[in-house]
Order: sequence, then structure tokens, then C-alpha cells
Amino acid sequence: MQDFLKDPSIFIGVQGKNIISFGSGQPDLAPPEQVFKILPEYRQFKYGLIQGQKNLRQALSKQYAGSNADNFVITNGASEALDLILRAIGKPGDKVLLHKPYYYSYPPLVEKNYLEPDYTEKIEGKIDIEDFEKKVKDCKIVIINSPSNPTGRIQEISTLKQIEKICKDLNITIISDEVYKDLIYERENYMMQGNHVVTINSFSKTFAMCGFRVGYLYSNDQSIVEKVIGLKTHTSMNTSIIAQEMAFEATKAPVEYQKKQLKIWKQRRDLIYNGLLELELELWKPEGAFYVLPKFPNPRKAVPELFKKHKVITYLGDWFGAPERIRLSYALEQEKIEEGLKRISAYLKNQP
Amino acid sequence: MQDFLKDPSIFIGVQGKNIISFGSGQPDLAPPEQVFKILPEYRQFKYGLIQGQKNLRQALSKQYAGSNADNFVITNGASEALDLILRAIGKPGDKVLLHKPYYYSYPPLVEKNYLEPDYTEKIEGKIDIEDFEKKVKDCKIVIINSPSNPTGRIQEISTLKQIEKICKDLNITIISDEVYKDLIYERENYMMQGNHVVTINSFSKTFAMCGFRVGYLYSNDQSIVEKVIGLKTHTSMNTSIIAQEMAFEATKAPVEYQKKQLKIWKQRRDLIYNGLLELELELWKPEGAFYVLPKFPNPRKAVPELFKKHKVITYLGDWFGAPERIRLSYALEQEKIEEGLKRISAYLKNQP
Repeated sequence: MQDFLKDPSIFIGVQGKNIISFGSGQPDLAPPEQVFKILPEYRQFKYGLIQGQKNLRQALSKQYAGSNADNFVITNGASEALDLILRAIGKPGDKVLLHKPYYYSYPPLVEKNYLEPDYTEKIEGKIDIEDFEKKVKDCKIVIINSPSNPTGRIQEISTLKQIEKICKDLNITIISDEVYKDLIYERENYMMQGNHVVTINSFSKTFAMCGFRVGYLYSNDQSIVEKVIGLKTHTSMNTSIIAQEMAFEATKAPVEYQKKQLKIWKQRRDLIYNGLLELELELWKPEGAFYVLPKFPNPRKAVPELFKKHKVITYLGDWFGAPERIRLSYALEQEKIEEGLKRISAYLKNQP
Repeated sequence: MQDFLKDPSIFIGVQGKNIISFGSGQPDLAPPEQVFKILPEYRQFKYGLIQGQKNLRQALSKQYAGSNADNFVITNGASEALDLILRAIGKPGDKVLLHKPYYYSYPPLVEKNYLEPDYTEKIEGKIDIEDFEKKVKDCKIVIINSPSNPTGRIQEISTLKQIEKICKDLNITIISDEVYKDLIYERENYMMQGNHVVTINSFSKTFAMCGFRVGYLYSNDQSIVEKVIGLKTHTSMNTSIIAQEMAFEATKAPVEYQKKQLKIWKQRRDLIYNGLLELELELWKPEGAFYVLPKFPNPRKAVPELFKKHKVITYLGDWFGAPERIRLSYALEQEKIEEGLKRISAYLKNQP
């Protein structure tokens, strides 16, 4: 059972009959159709620019006011963007502030780059700006993730603006991981801004393109962009050209695609949120992304048993800095969510 | 002009009318046709296994005697495989032995991972085993690259076996970068062997698939494989699923594909080798890969001028630890090689 407590890697890519996976954070809904339409004629095979295909960067620059194609680097998913930026700007021993609960890759990425994680605890999934201000003083870098994986919570616009200002005054770089920016149920996304902000994004969530691995980073500080390109030249070279071309097609998808998806996500959010409330679990209402992070009795026993006995994949809250909780992704069909909730209910009823 | 002296990144992906590029090391010949045949029906989009698609790893295991699918990790090109393995097994301050001239990414990859490069000078492109043995004693890791980029030279089988033994006795890990293993004009490849050997390979050169970024590492030591997967889980997740599927198709390409390519490479090798000899340049005869590394008058003046005045891209030998030389890739059509040689001849005639 130990393996199921180590990290999520054992569950990633696992599929099987009768398994209900609340695990991996990937949309089950298909990407926009035009993403595949270019494939029959595709015949490129040579290296692309390390920075990324120009057509894709130009399309992105239209989405970010005041940017141009030179401000972007296309990466192997947001994961590589995060790794590259930490590697490019961090110096060994630099402190990086994370808000807890956090995306499970943040602490290992910080540590693999010989940086030191520091933590600020959120209150009901919202950043406590007083604690933030106290902790951030010793830090060189801050990672902000709104909407958040694993909480599904968004940060107030006023909080985000305060963070912008505090970090600007202290000369701290903000890495703003906005991969769920298009999946917010409550309001429009507020994009963190300034020369000290590096925005991370991806085609994985908005366009259901997880497997293709196309993400990017955006910075108005060209010296940061150059450092990242210099690093990527050696660590992986260009991002897969065919995946980039598919991502470029995705940028042309009609707005209806996203609207339709958001509607489905919201229905599922309501379904799982209410379902878990009925099971008398304590949880925060998700405002974006597609995760819930309820408190759960004995998660280290529950996560392996839910999988072994009930074929339900859930993730240990401990991986996200929330040891009393489990994370459920609701990126699956309504019937499966209902079936999964039934199984969780059955599991809970059998507990002493 | 300074930019042309910094590193090759400025040239990567640069194409243009009337430019003759002896720069980037990528085949101009097309990949096997079946690589593209799967595209019209392709509809996958979800995360794949971090370790890589099972069908691809199984196909690879058939190429490596005594291996199984679990011994492989599929990566974003050989570049990521190199970075991951150095990152996974190196500890800050560990020395890594490189043979000079070296592939230009080795020293930065070593340094970005807080390891220390050490160097053994080759004699006419061949490892000097006495110097190697002396230097290796202080090292934890050795990178061997045969056939070599940038020299095109291969190491003698007896040398490779000596290195295997020396490193085994001293408990040193060998990273054997064999990305040009299928492009040898003189003999079959000798694959370095043992539990202390990590083999790096790629679909980029053998199957002309540079842009798709599919490489891999192979190790019989499962603890090394696990460490690499653990790292990749956070730094980039799975390698692009569509690129992996194309690579899987490439493993089914008929042997004639490779034979035909090798014949063309050899013709080009002879053409450029003899052409450069006629220009009275001093060089080593390439035995594999598709590079020559001639001595050249004043390379720091020549490389920018060849590009600016003659539209000929060459790489500075300095990037490869060979400051008196320039590197020419002969991965281009015969007529272009001939035209390029003419322009280089014209350049040389105009020198004082």
C-alpha cells in the first residue's frame, strides 16, 4: 500500500474498467476539433525555434494586452515552464514562498533547484495577507496559483493587487501560475501584472490537451525570457513542433468551445460539492479549476483502501500540504461522479 | 556580430532563401513515411505515463538485449534525458568527466546542475586512455559520446571496453550518449554495457525526427530509472503522446530506410571531407554522425563573416571546446554542400 502514499505518479495515466478516478487533473472532454484537423496534412519534422513557434507566440500575444511574441516561451507543459523559471532566476538558498495547500509539484521543483520553500497558511483557501506580508520579506520568489489546484479557490482581486504591490516594492519575482484562469465560475480572471510577474499558462486545461504537453511562460522582462531560452537550449530544446501546431489551432477555437465547457464544469462542481456536503464532509466551495479538497477521516488509510476495495482513485491531501484532507478532481462524467460518490459513501459507512 | 559568438541558439531554426546552413545538426532527409500515416486517425489527448508509452518502451526493449520495457524512460529528446540523468544522480560539487571536443550542451548541463566539469583532451578525436584514467579518478560521472558530435569520430571498441572496466572498478556512472549509433560508416556500434551505464538515445538522428523531441534513457539499474521518473513527474510530466506514437511507428520502419540513409550520409561525408582537404584545411576524417571539425583561420572572425557576407552558417569550434576550429554539419543536399564549399573557398581567398 505504501506506493499509494508516496506521490501521485503511480496513478497518472492509470485507466481501467470500473475504476472511478477522482485523481488526475485532466479534462475528459475532448479538445476543439480543429486541433486534430491539421494532422492529415502535417509533414514538418525539423527543429523549431527554442523559444517556440512564432505563429503560436503571436496568437498568444493577442490574448495578453501590451505583450508581443518575444515575451513568450513555449514549453513542455506548465510543468516545464515552472521548472525553467525557477532554475533560470533562482540562486541556491533563495527562499520561495508558497501558499498552503499548494500544487504538489511546487515543493519538489523548488527543492530540485536548490531553493528553499517557505509557506503561508491560507484561511479557507484564501491568502492571509498579513501572514503573507510577514513571510514574504525573506523571499526572492513567490508562487501564486489562482484558481488553485488543489483547493479550487480563487484569490480576491484586491488580494492579488496587494501582493503585486508588496512584491514590487520588495523586488520579489511573482510566478503566477494561471493554468486554470479560463475555468472560473465566479468572475473573470484577474491577471497579475508588472515587470516582476512571470505568468505561467498551458493548453492542458482550457483546451483539454494535457497529453500533448504545451504550456508557456510570459514575461515583460526580456532578460528573464532570454535566460529561460538559454536554459531550454540545453535542457530540452524546442517543444514538440506538432503539439505546438495543434496548440496554435486551439487558439482559433470559437469562444463557444470554452463557454460550453465552463457550463459543464459548473454542473459537475455543483454535483460533487453538494454530494460531499451530503456525506457530511467539511469542504470549501470551489470557485474555479476542477478540484475539491474535503477533510476526510484518516486519509492515509482511506486513499489506498478506496482504490483497492472500491476502485476509486483519490489523492492524498498530504501531497498538497493538507494532511487532513483528500483531493478529488471532478474531471469526469456526471454518472461517474455519482457512482464515485456512492462508493465513497459506502466506504465511509463501513468505517468504525 | 557578438550574438553569433555566444552560442548556437541564434542559428537554431533559422532558415532562409539562399542560406547554406552547415549549422544545426539535423537530418534534412524525411522521417519514415509511416510516422505520418497514423496522424489522420489520431484522437488521443490525455496524459500518458510519465515513464513513456508502454508500446514504445516495449519496442525499444527488443533493440536492447537483456532489457525490458521498465528499463526505459521516454524523454523530450536526448537533451532532456541528459539533463534528467545528471540531475537525478549528481550531487552538487560532483565532478563529471567530459572528453574534448564535446557536444556544446554538456558543460552547461553539468553546470546548471551544480556539478563540476572536468576534461580529458582527445588525440585526433580519440580518447587518450592514460589521461582518461588519471582524470576519472576524481569523478562520479563520465559522459561518453561515440560517434561524437562535433568530431564525427568514433571511439575504438577496445577503448570503450577499457572505460567500462575502469568506471566499474571505481564505481563511476557512465552516461553513454549514443544518439549517432546508427550513423557509423566504419563498423557496427558497440553499446557500452553494465549496471553502471546509462544509455542515451533519440529518434532525432536515426529517424530524422528532431522537431518532435523524442529521446530516451535506458538503464539496467531500476533505482536510477525510478529516480528519473520521480524527477520528470514534476519537471515536465509525460513526453508528448502524439510524438511518442510517431516514434513507435518509426520503430517499425524497414531496415532499408536506415541503410538508404546511411549510404547518402557516407556520400556526403566523402564530398565534404575531400572538399575541405582541397581547401587545405586540417581535419579528422569523420567515421560517424554528420559533422566535420576542421581547423580554420580566426574562427571568431570567420563564423560571423561567413554568415553575414556569404550566408553560410557554421558553428564556432569554441562552443565545443575546440577554439581553433569550426564545426560543419553536412546534413544537407549534395548541391548545397558543393555551393557551401565554394563560398567558404571564396571567403578563404579573400583573407589577408
